Amino acid sequence: MPGPPLLRLPLKESSAKMPSQMEHAMETIMFTFHKYSNDKNHLTKEDLRSLMEREFPGFLDNQKDPMALEKILKSLEQSRDGCINFQGFFSLIAGLTIGCNEYFVVHMKQKGKKY
Amino acid sequence: MPGPPLLRLPLKESSAKMPSQMEHAMETIMFTFHKYSNDKNHLTKEDLRSLMEREFPGFLDNQKDPMALEKILKSLEQSRDGCINFQGFFSLIAGLTIGCNEYFVVHMKQKGKKY
Repeated sequence: MPGPPLLRLPLKESSAKMPSQMEHAMETIMFTFHKYSNDKNHLTKEDLRSLMEREFPGFLDNQKDPMALEKILKSLEQSRDGCINFQGFFSLIAGLTIGCNEYFVVHMKQKGKKY
Repeated sequence: MPGPPLLRLPLKESSAKMPSQMEHAMETIMFTFHKYSNDKNHLTKEDLRSLMEREFPGFLDNQKDPMALEKILKSLEQSRDGCINFQGFFSLIAGLTIGCNEYFVVHMKQKGKKY
């Protein structure tokens, strides 16, 4: 059952017996969004707070700016309604992962760390 | 050991005993890129072909356009060198996941499918 982009996601519905690690990772991101949005198709500020607290422990606590959550929300909302849709959520994940990757490349690969 | 974006990635180096599903998914995307780039920090056309064939089985075979791989590469390369860096790779994953999510929202959630 290929979806529009000809992938095997969602995995449960497809004939994929052995999902690849990437398929599994993408499905996790997708389902995490829907879990915390409670099927509303968008994340409110409180949904985003829950998601950040449970999925990225310490992230909000470690921010020096007490308005960090509000600023994240503001930068990702598409229509000034204080909500984030899936594309906005994916932009957040992209920014965080790209930041981690830069750190990995500079600090870890030089030490010969393997994945 | 928070990296610059105050996350616990890479997990091996951090004090994260129980990584969250999202942390695990993001690390998978990061390490998949480095695995197929063979530590070059970019994917060539052949690296991308290998990655697509192994991580998204059937995706390239199901494309009607025989130039699909070339077109993907062209749309993601940053400096016309025929290579994709991590940001370009993440854009590809974003596009694929957003497509799958749209399919999921329209076709699956209406049927009451849960994740």
